[in-house]
Amino acid sequence: MAHITASVEYGIHSLLWLAASDAAPLSSRDLAEFQGLSPSFVAKIFPKLEKAGILKATEGVRGGYVLAKAPEEISVLEIVDAIEGRKPLFDCLDIRGRCVVFGEDPPAWATAGVCSIHAVMLRAEKAMRESLASQSLANVARAVGRKAPAGFSDEVRNCLQARVVARAGRSKA
Amino acid sequence: MAHITASVEYGIHSLLWLAASDAAPLSSRDLAEFQGLSPSFVAKIFPKLEKAGILKATEGVRGGYVLAKAPEEISVLEIVDAIEGRKPLFDCLDIRGRCVVFGEDPPAWATAGVCSIHAVMLRAEKAMRESLASQSLANVARAVGRKAPAGFSDEVRNCLQARVVARAGRSKA
Repeated sequence: MAHITASVEYGIHSLLWLAASDAAPLSSRDLAEFQGLSPSFVAKIFPKLEKAGILKATEGVRGGYVLAKAPEEISVLEIVDAIEGRKPLFDCLDIRGRCVVFGEDPPAWATAGVCSIHAVMLRAEKAMRESLASQSLANVARAVGRKAPAGFSDEVRNCLQARVVARAGRSKA
Repeated sequence: MAHITASVEYGIHSLLWLAASDAAPLSSRDLAEFQGLSPSFVAKIFPKLEKAGILKATEGVRGGYVLAKAPEEISVLEIVDAIEGRKPLFDCLDIRGRCVVFGEDPPAWATAGVCSIHAVMLRAEKAMRESLASQSLANVARAVGRKAPAGFSDEVRNCLQARVVARAGRSKA
């Protein structure tokens, strides 16, 4: 399994559609069905994004999720950390103290500070995280938007809204 | 499991000891036992490092592995790629064409080029790989060496050599 999993892909795509929906609340089912994704899979992602302060939930028959802040203020790193947790790139087992030269009792210098191999991995992780932190949801939305023809965003908004209206109708019936 | 696994940690530690052994060939068992690691686990790593041109094998009763090039010429990225394979940070499922707005047949613009989310992940992966590529085995060895007291490298060399001599003796007996 890749370090950054399909849950992040589904999450970012869902946030992009939410950003495009013009602040109309959408349920995780609305967004899953709209994207041809498994609703139960997507449903697991949204509470994590809510807990991280990226989404907020609204109540009522037309309730659902909205972005908790502007797309410019949501970094890709925040989304990744919210969904994946803060998992390290490299999980150092700190084997340096086990060398037979040390016997049963490694000297303090041998295990002092961060292992030099771990330090290299932490620098690489920092570079990766800084790159993800430098990109916002708004940046990604603009990149997607540049590909779409004029009128597409209206089409998306209408389609998402029709879905919300249909859901509200079903829940009243 | 972390993206960069314990095999890389074991591999880099083993390469550091090989670099410290002054070109005396060491077997993967020598290195595993010297470090208090599982010999069968370490034995799986060495053929990968040999295939990548980082180690070379020498024959004979005192045979074993030596570095195939100078520690300055071995980057941490090379070691990681040799051991882990070239696994991606993010495995894009390219879900962008599944949106219901497109029906069964997504338009060419919707799936043209690299997905904008994938592009962000590729940039982060590049930053991580550049960081790993900028560090050589020699850099890591120097960082480790700065912590060790004077005389430690002689102690290591003697201990490793005693191991090789004992192995050669056993194989003659």
